Amino acid sequence: KKNDKPKDNSYSNRGMQFEEEIQESNEFYLSRGTAVIHKKPTPLQIVQVDYPARSAAVVKEAYFQKPSTTDFNGVYKGLHLDFEAKETRNKTSFPLKNFHDHQVEHMKNVCRQRGLCFILIHFRPQEEIYLYPAEAFFPWYDSRMNGRKSIPKESIENEGYLVKRGFLPRVDYLKAVDELLQDRKEE
Amino acid sequence: KKNDKPKDNSYSNRGMQFEEEIQESNEFYLSRGTAVIHKKPTPLQIVQVDYPARSAAVVKEAYFQKPSTTDFNGVYKGLHLDFEAKETRNKTSFPLKNFHDHQVEHMKNVCRQRGLCFILIHFRPQEEIYLYPAEAFFPWYDSRMNGRKSIPKESIENEGYLVKRGFLPRVDYLKAVDELLQDRKEE
Ligand SMILES: [Mg+2]
Ligand SMILES: [Mg+2]
Repeated sequence: KKNDKPKDNSYSNRGMQFEEEIQESNEFYLSRGTAVIHKKPTPLQIVQVDYPARSAAVVKEAYFQKPSTTDFNGVYKGLHLDFEAKETRNKTSFPLKNFHDHQVEHMKNVCRQRGLCFILIHFRPQEEIYLYPAEAFFPWYDSRMNGRKSIPKESIENEGYLVKRGFLPRVDYLKAVDELLQDRKEE
Repeated sequence: KKNDKPKDNSYSNRGMQFEEEIQESNEFYLSRGTAVIHKKPTPLQIVQVDYPARSAAVVKEAYFQKPSTTDFNGVYKGLHLDFEAKETRNKTSFPLKNFHDHQVEHMKNVCRQRGLCFILIHFRPQEEIYLYPAEAFFPWYDSRMNGRKSIPKESIENEGYLVKRGFLPRVDYLKAVDELLQDRKEE
């Protein structure tokens, strides 16, 4: 399980531990009947497969592909949830460079279909996690060419929802989802 | 793309063409802003990855895993959709043997969260496709040990919704979803 991603120093890999905490939380939610959220398997382009007699097929050559969707999706109280988990070592802002256009396009499509779309952002220096709604994220992303290349942490604090860490679940992001839903109801 | 599945004669592989038609239909729906539905990548257990200098990481050994969820999910008009695509060469019934417990458990969990869950069943002899709601499927599955090992086609015709084939999209299953939603509204 440890070597299912390239060992380079890319952003997504520094995020692995955080993603695992989310997966653990999802398992907890599932076991309690709270929600059904799964991580999508990393897409692989498979080039060569061997079929040894009397044993399982073996993939002999395959390459990691850029996912065209987000990491996680599922259903919670009748709502379609769709989100991406990201980590940063930055203290005061969250860099936009680790999103790619396809992913953001996907998030916009999900919003248009009235799915609930967001990013879970982990600031490692402070060990803080925020649920940041996709609707708040889009303007930053869309203006990154002629504007800032990162989102100030302050904006994330203001427009986002702090996610409490705990023991079970470790990352209780559905509480933050509830807060967001409550806010939208009141609007 | 052709060799991303074992070439044995298993059920799921005979289903590939049908799945591709659904993926094409999903692309059409996406391009029209009708729905955001994706196929989940086949999960692989990765055993060995090489990291050649100055080139992309290569998966050198990996094995196909049984998926613990269904093939497709996404969002349509605010609804979470979750479904499995299956094909059969049988003329008069649909065999239950190609579902495994984990998958059915997943479908039940999705229903509990008020997601819309179903199976798209393709009867190859008649070239007919039905949307069969998960709620109709569960009793057959749960009683398969002391009952029938297959669902009579007649029951699928009665409790399911015929999916029309066309050119764009080839498999217009969202029309059948609309019919099902209409029926549930009227109940
Ligand atoms: Mg991620
Ligand atoms: Mg299938």
